[in-house]
Amino acid sequence: MCRFLAYHGEPVYLDDLVCTPTHSLIHQSLHAAEAKTETNGDGFGIGWYGERPEPGLFRDVRPAWSDENLRSLARQIRARTFLAHVRASTGTATARANCHPFAYGRLLFMHNGQIGGYGRIKRRLEALIPDHLYEARAGSTDSEALFLLALANGLETDPVAAMAESVAAVRGLMRAAGIEEPLRLTAVLSDGESLTAFRWACDGRPPSLYWRETGSGIVVVSEPIDGCREGWSVVPKGATLIARAGEPTRVIAPEAPEGRIAA
Amino acid sequence: MCRFLAYHGEPVYLDDLVCTPTHSLIHQSLHAAEAKTETNGDGFGIGWYGERPEPGLFRDVRPAWSDENLRSLARQIRARTFLAHVRASTGTATARANCHPFAYGRLLFMHNGQIGGYGRIKRRLEALIPDHLYEARAGSTDSEALFLLALANGLETDPVAAMAESVAAVRGLMRAAGIEEPLRLTAVLSDGESLTAFRWACDGRPPSLYWRETGSGIVVVSEPIDGCREGWSVVPKGATLIARAGEPTRVIAPEAPEGRIAA
Amino acid sequence: MCRFLAYHGEPVYLDDLVCTPTHSLIHQSLHAAEAKTETNGDGFGIGWYGERPEPGLFRDVRPAWSDENLRSLARQIRARTFLAHVRASTGTATARANCHPFAYGRLLFMHNGQIGGYGRIKRRLEALIPDHLYEARAGSTDSEALFLLALANGLETDPVAAMAESVAAVRGLMRAAGIEEPLRLTAVLSDGESLTAFRWACDGRPPSLYWRETGSGIVVVSEPIDGCREGWSVVPKGATLIARAGEPTRVIAPEAPEGRIAA
Amino acid sequence: MCRFLAYHGEPVYLDDLVCTPTHSLIHQSLHAAEAKTETNGDGFGIGWYGERPEPGLFRDVRPAWSDENLRSLARQIRARTFLAHVRASTGTATARANCHPFAYGRLLFMHNGQIGGYGRIKRRLEALIPDHLYEARAGSTDSEALFLLALANGLETDPVAAMAESVAAVRGLMRAAGIEEPLRLTAVLSDGESLTAFRWACDGRPPSLYWRETGSGIVVVSEPIDGCREGWSVVPKGATLIARAGEPTRVIAPEAPEGRIAA
Repeated sequence: MCRFLAYHGEPVYLDDLVCTPTHSLIHQSLHAAEAKTETNGDGFGIGWYGERPEPGLFRDVRPAWSDENLRSLARQIRARTFLAHVRASTGTATARANCHPFAYGRLLFMHNGQIGGYGRIKRRLEALIPDHLYEARAGSTDSEALFLLALANGLETDPVAAMAESVAAVRGLMRAAGIEEPLRLTAVLSDGESLTAFRWACDGRPPSLYWRETGSGIVVVSEPIDGCREGWSVVPKGATLIARAGEPTRVIAPEAPEGRIAA
Repeated sequence: MCRFLAYHGEPVYLDDLVCTPTHSLIHQSLHAAEAKTETNGDGFGIGWYGERPEPGLFRDVRPAWSDENLRSLARQIRARTFLAHVRASTGTATARANCHPFAYGRLLFMHNGQIGGYGRIKRRLEALIPDHLYEARAGSTDSEALFLLALANGLETDPVAAMAESVAAVRGLMRAAGIEEPLRLTAVLSDGESLTAFRWACDGRPPSLYWRETGSGIVVVSEPIDGCREGWSVVPKGATLIARAGEPTRVIAPEAPEGRIAA
Repeated sequence: MCRFLAYHGEPVYLDDLVCTPTHSLIHQSLHAAEAKTETNGDGFGIGWYGERPEPGLFRDVRPAWSDENLRSLARQIRARTFLAHVRASTGTATARANCHPFAYGRLLFMHNGQIGGYGRIKRRLEALIPDHLYEARAGSTDSEALFLLALANGLETDPVAAMAESVAAVRGLMRAAGIEEPLRLTAVLSDGESLTAFRWACDGRPPSLYWRETGSGIVVVSEPIDGCREGWSVVPKGATLIARAGEPTRVIAPEAPEGRIAA
Repeated sequence: MCRFLAYHGEPVYLDDLVCTPTHSLIHQSLHAAEAKTETNGDGFGIGWYGERPEPGLFRDVRPAWSDENLRSLARQIRARTFLAHVRASTGTATARANCHPFAYGRLLFMHNGQIGGYGRIKRRLEALIPDHLYEARAGSTDSEALFLLALANGLETDPVAAMAESVAAVRGLMRAAGIEEPLRLTAVLSDGESLTAFRWACDGRPPSLYWRETGSGIVVVSEPIDGCREGWSVVPKGATLIARAGEPTRVIAPEAPEGRIAA
């Protein structure tokens, strides 16, 4: 399990959200309150949209709480849209390529959760990824595999449908392999102009996911960064949140046909 | 604050003490129970005596709990005497040279505690270290400075007197600088043939320190590795423990003239 | 391209071969003489057989030439059989899981060379690896994939046949994908009781491979560690060398039916 | 010995100078042409001036040539003034705190060269640094010590005089210690609004240093980044170069009283 934060809105310095708040993401790397694991020290990453066509990416294997590079970059970088992630490995190695977010073209993706019994279906899952996307696989996590699969399923053009289809495919592999551990996920996708956040679990127990509109934009987090839940809305189980600057934030309920992730 | 473990006796594999027990040192790197900080993820180190004149040393900056190299080495290395340490930085950088144990010639030294107001007396403390020892300074911690100072004061020949003199000198610098934060320490020194363990604080509140004789030797720890205090003896405040294979373990009480660390 | 060294014989300290000689493997990490790349600074690894059923493994991402841990471990570890490797990446990330040697059960494997056009056949190559072996895949190199494929083909019981079959399979994938870059390899396999070294290329231009019997055992190297070729024998192109303590070293010529690696 | 590059002028992306050119700084990390050591793989660093009062700093211990973080950051960061450095250690450890540039307040400093016999005068050199500056010492290099000493001597207000005084002090220590190895240095200092570059050696053999005005600004380099010397000017031995946007670049000859670094 991991902790993450995403922002979209007026340009802000990353450290305003990542480092400075009472219960900032860096603080959560040591003392997560709502996670299965309190410590998220198996690497971290930030992805942001600057002036280049592709997003910037900075990921490293040390704990976020003591990384001077992260601290300096979060002070310097100002962005309209960024994702930040601290990792608690669920088994795969501590390596940069296993740190979130993952980038593909203009997209960034990060994940908190776990595909139950992943080791037993890893290869079959990878077999669903087309060659041209598989070439981009650099690590060994379930998260990266899910991202690439969702890309194959149209993540760029229809994120909700693509994620629903991908999760259904993974669930199919899990059932075929007789896996009883659950698939649980929260995830955020961005193309720089919007955030799409997913919260779902096959057993109705997805990881926590909150959002809030600040004066300058929207923040989506694993857990509130001010240490209290006041002012934060929960993304409902099974729902998808879509935020785009200049438009009202939408939360697509799971009952809505277009919001249904998986059977 | 940190956590550590030292062993002296019949040869054992390091992982029997470092990795395998319920509340092993690796477990304590994530979930210390008696420390100021629960997480000790700012690097780790092992030092052991093999067939060479000087001890082996392996230190790295990643958290111990996920380091595959540490796990493999602890499986392979068997030693009569070894020290192991997981670090929670009290301010200085996460770097190999700041990880314990420190080695000098045949000696190994590790420390858990803190010299209060260290930043304000760092240079004066270093000025007490003679040139030929100062050349061995590779990092920037208070622990390494204390070790080098104690070496200058005869740590190799009379550890208890040398440590007492060194701590008194540091206390003198602290007083001169008007520092009110305490000096607290637990430390272990070894020359391969013995362990000397110190527990002292100027305010009577030193970090925890325990020891136990197993079938094969003596184990000195920051906190019991089996998760319960039964069978473990506390090293009294101000006392020094001396263990040497073939001799009864001695605990020199602070009242004893030779056990007095500082005025 | 990389540089490697393997030893089998009377127990020796690793640093006698890895660090001390004029043109030691550590020296080759900075100044390889017969490699496509002079610098082999993208990580390193050592694997050795001690008292445990499985070999020890120590791999890291820094250049070998400045790694104090490698230097200390090579001083301390003495083994009858060990493999050592310095890496120059041919494209995949600098990560521990991409460093050689690779371990599986009691086997160690390391590789110098390249599967031409690997990116285009990576997934099909991985698809040839059975699930129970694929679960052991931790990195993304062609070398690790070849090792796991060869394991599936019986590397443990008949190394020469297994490697021949595996290389033939890879060549088949390359041909099917219309890849014109060559497959070139030198590799060493060990089970602790023997060394098997392979040298082959589809275009007749395999990397260099030498061997020599010293007073204490046999050394197999990418290039001589004393900086001169005197006393060293070349493993002929297409040949396989098999060394086992107490038996004469055999070089199976490529003409011999059992020595033929690929069509 | 190391290689470095500094830029001041219209905002440019770092990778236009650091990564893209034929003989870019990243290329020089593997294949320096005019350095004592061809490989500069013992860490790297970039420092740049953005919108914050203090400069950004990103330093890491891996070789620059394979660092994906460096590559992404150099693509994203655009700055009017920046310094970049690839390191070849002359003895001290590979650690972030030993990588250049060094930062203090708004100043950045980087160095290529060596203080001969540094180990023998290290402590005396450090003793010249006042406490409030010594607290900022995080590593163990001669370069950082020289920077802090120069700060004490007024580097911020009169760089040329401060460096002259500092170098003279170091030379004094060297003479007193009977050190015969030379002091050789090239260095660049910046406050964000200007570059000051030094080239000096006590034996008349300083490392190489070049500069060039491009359409957008001035570039100062250890060696030309286009692989040819055409269009590049040599900073004369003993001279100091001062560049400030909107003013003509000045090269203060060593004969000029204000350009004299040391007796």
